[in-house]
Amino acid sequence: MKKQLRIIPLGGLGEIGKNMTVLEYGRNMIVVDCGLMFPDSSLPGIDLVLPQFDYVVKNQDQLRGIVITHGHMDHIGGLPYLMRQIKAPIYGTDMTIGMIRRQLDEGKVLQQAHLQVVKNTDSFQLGPFKINLFPVAHSIPGSVGLVIDTPVGAVVHTGDYKLDETPAGGQTTDLARLKKLTPNGVLALMADSTNADRPGSTPTEKRVTEELDRLFTEAKDGRIIIATFASLLARLQEIILLAKKHGRKVALTGRSLQENMAIARELGYIKIPDGTLVEISARVPDKKLVILSTGSQGEPRSALNRMAEGEHREVTVRKGDTIIISGGTIPGNEEEVGRMLNKLFARGANVIYGKLADIHVSGHGSRDEMEIMLQAVQPKFFIPVHGEVRHQHLHARLAEKNNVAAANVYILNNGAAWASDGQKAWLDKPVGACDVMVDGRLVGEVGAVVIQDRQNLSQDGFIVALMRVNAANKLVGEPELITRGFVTVADSSELLKSATREIKQHFRRGKVVAHDNVREMLQNFFYRETQSRPVVLPSIIRV
Amino acid sequence: MKKQLRIIPLGGLGEIGKNMTVLEYGRNMIVVDCGLMFPDSSLPGIDLVLPQFDYVVKNQDQLRGIVITHGHMDHIGGLPYLMRQIKAPIYGTDMTIGMIRRQLDEGKVLQQAHLQVVKNTDSFQLGPFKINLFPVAHSIPGSVGLVIDTPVGAVVHTGDYKLDETPAGGQTTDLARLKKLTPNGVLALMADSTNADRPGSTPTEKRVTEELDRLFTEAKDGRIIIATFASLLARLQEIILLAKKHGRKVALTGRSLQENMAIARELGYIKIPDGTLVEISARVPDKKLVILSTGSQGEPRSALNRMAEGEHREVTVRKGDTIIISGGTIPGNEEEVGRMLNKLFARGANVIYGKLADIHVSGHGSRDEMEIMLQAVQPKFFIPVHGEVRHQHLHARLAEKNNVAAANVYILNNGAAWASDGQKAWLDKPVGACDVMVDGRLVGEVGAVVIQDRQNLSQDGFIVALMRVNAANKLVGEPELITRGFVTVADSSELLKSATREIKQHFRRGKVVAHDNVREMLQNFFYRETQSRPVVLPSIIRV
Repeated sequence: MKKQLRIIPLGGLGEIGKNMTVLEYGRNMIVVDCGLMFPDSSLPGIDLVLPQFDYVVKNQDQLRGIVITHGHMDHIGGLPYLMRQIKAPIYGTDMTIGMIRRQLDEGKVLQQAHLQVVKNTDSFQLGPFKINLFPVAHSIPGSVGLVIDTPVGAVVHTGDYKLDETPAGGQTTDLARLKKLTPNGVLALMADSTNADRPGSTPTEKRVTEELDRLFTEAKDGRIIIATFASLLARLQEIILLAKKHGRKVALTGRSLQENMAIARELGYIKIPDGTLVEISARVPDKKLVILSTGSQGEPRSALNRMAEGEHREVTVRKGDTIIISGGTIPGNEEEVGRMLNKLFARGANVIYGKLADIHVSGHGSRDEMEIMLQAVQPKFFIPVHGEVRHQHLHARLAEKNNVAAANVYILNNGAAWASDGQKAWLDKPVGACDVMVDGRLVGEVGAVVIQDRQNLSQDGFIVALMRVNAANKLVGEPELITRGFVTVADSSELLKSATREIKQHFRRGKVVAHDNVREMLQNFFYRETQSRPVVLPSIIRV
Repeated sequence: MKKQLRIIPLGGLGEIGKNMTVLEYGRNMIVVDCGLMFPDSSLPGIDLVLPQFDYVVKNQDQLRGIVITHGHMDHIGGLPYLMRQIKAPIYGTDMTIGMIRRQLDEGKVLQQAHLQVVKNTDSFQLGPFKINLFPVAHSIPGSVGLVIDTPVGAVVHTGDYKLDETPAGGQTTDLARLKKLTPNGVLALMADSTNADRPGSTPTEKRVTEELDRLFTEAKDGRIIIATFASLLARLQEIILLAKKHGRKVALTGRSLQENMAIARELGYIKIPDGTLVEISARVPDKKLVILSTGSQGEPRSALNRMAEGEHREVTVRKGDTIIISGGTIPGNEEEVGRMLNKLFARGANVIYGKLADIHVSGHGSRDEMEIMLQAVQPKFFIPVHGEVRHQHLHARLAEKNNVAAANVYILNNGAAWASDGQKAWLDKPVGACDVMVDGRLVGEVGAVVIQDRQNLSQDGFIVALMRVNAANKLVGEPELITRGFVTVADSSELLKSATREIKQHFRRGKVVAHDNVREMLQNFFYRETQSRPVVLPSIIRV
């Protein structure tokens, strides 16, 4: 293999989530991040989507280490699956490693990984790669960006970042350190594109704290229930301090919230004043209580949605409650969130959401911040990462506007192999990196055919037509129809009776030669009668 | 029946779309609006949802007329279905009636309706109700609000409105006329709640025109493709004038766009300068062409989405094209719009969407406008309409803030019967008004059971297990498994073989007593093996 640097995204370039990038030099490889993606509605029934690990597994003897930028699931969630197939050291800050440890433990692969805690300004060598960390402001403590010194030049990977000067938790993005780490310029910049369609700068987290303070004052004698992302640990800390200030206790509901809080407390990222935390079942007067809850995305089984449905064991929402949704709605969740909000209002609560107050800001920088990063780094080559295709294209244009030559901007598909000798860059043959769907215990067994079937079934259901046929190809007895998701026998008995009559006629006319023949006849019949297209599956049983 | 006014929402209160309200006095009834709702993802396979017409059909001898506020589908789309069951006069402005005529014609029920064109300042008598129209600013020409004089007092129904002082099309909301029409005060106000969670005022449509003007200038030598709602007729007019100004021709693609444009031109609401309109197939240089397209919501079969997929017959998107999405994304459509945008960017187009420019404003007023309306009308009773439950609750609170007594604010479910003698108000026994789902030709036959089945099938598919059983309850031959949407035989043959072995063992153990017995065994088996829950349907065939 020639001495050249290769950057190969296995996930995270080209769609949201499941970030994973391979860097190669000679017979040495490192991996940056290993996330998962929660599927959108185009993948019904799928629990999560992973990058395809084949390339890393095949070359695992060359793997010098895995570096993780921060502890969010789209950066660490793939590790339990990868670690089933390989052993490797994993590097991250204490908070990041804390989050990873829990994931690997749940996946029963903790012994496969050698977890290495590093500081957010550490440097360490992995084969020919020198990894230099710099702190970034993001919505979870311990977030870092990377300056990766390679034999052909420095590569900067921003991780997820914003340029908030007053973030919760206090860690700002250290552009000065980034510059100091790159005295000889930067060969390639890989930068977060998530908010490339948002003009200006992302508002500061401090604004959220001020607004929550105001809402705490307005809540007066009622309970305050706040739903937010369980991973927004810095905001959780701010809320706890606000509770203390307003003389309220804090109770937690939702498993991920309790687990994350435990990790963050142990590591000192969250400090809870003595006597502030109470059990959700504790008897505390309404005006003395804040309930921190999961469910800002309207997830059906989340604590807040169970409250909306009246199914939460300890909390019954009532008039006087102030409910604050302190988390942006992830695209695709709008309907579920909307339905949950409707139910909470119907129970009499005062719900603050969306634009009614400044109660959420993104953890990612907007267009102005992206320009500042581009100007600070002044890379020769630019590879937008994170976000969807549209965000990467918009980010690419920002780079061109900021003095990166258009020919030096690369929007990479997963599995593409960007290569450089430090002067030129080119694309090698792709290594291949499909999405791997996880459905229960099935990893990769559910593919496009099954997904297409599920979509068809969800539209008009199915009909299995059972026909007993004798040696002379004559129908024996009555055909039997088994149907779900199309119509019910109770509401459409006439339609189904007509269908069995059609089948009998079809046989009487001697037209039956194969399954497909009966299928086509029935498909046409049902479309003619209902203008619907159920999945039709004839089954001919020889008797 | 006592002499009292009753207001009965049959649709449109409590959820988005399908607006329909009954007003009754003695043995006289009028209907305001009759819309349909396009279902969200919780109703898979459903084409549209209608109000339940039973109450109107049952009392059709009392129906004095149907009054329509404007020509959008959520206000007129139910008429073709209602008119299958009754005959009635329908009142609306010329544009509204034009839109209705097309709907009734398509539904082959045009002869059932007596269409009555009225002016936007007309008054007319329907039984004991005097209907007085006042113009409102909304995103389709001919929009009106209603002052309905009843024997117990005036009822104001705003329809959809905003207080834009410089709307496209020029029709502002005539609050002065509204006040003049209500010299003795207002008994009840029914007002549009759609944007009750948006602070401030909705920006003026004029801003959109200015921004489009700027984008036309920036587009230079490329084509401009603009996707917008086919019903935003005033904006279509502005775009045509901008095209003329910038020396471009205009081509239309998308059926609804062409049809609406034809109606609006015929009625004089859209004026197209001679020579500006060209066929989509005409050979026009890129820099001289604007293509107006449907598809701002990413609808799979829309013109713009076909361009994104490379399946549009006449238009191939390429580098140099500027594509402008001039329509807000309706909640629930974010994923489809996002996927479409990704594909358009990948084809090299410069796509302007979302917050990248001020290219869309809502047709509904925001919170400040709602307050102005409340102050102008000063109703005794307040009934928020349109929007979802959360919007109505927020609107209700605004009313309380603006001097409506809390006890006089009514958030009504569909089918609720609000009654008043002009002094007091109370709730009569509800009349019942369920959602009626339309699936192809099936109107009302697809119910909750079928929807639940579809949701289950979309998650994990199904397995039909065919077992031939003899008189001694012994299995004959091999069980046969028919499955779709769970796994494929190719990828999971071992799993399916194990399942047939389980069935055979089950029979050998003599455990078969009924279908349910086999179902439970198989459900447990598949959950144990895969952690998925396909729909299991055993079929025992006696041979």
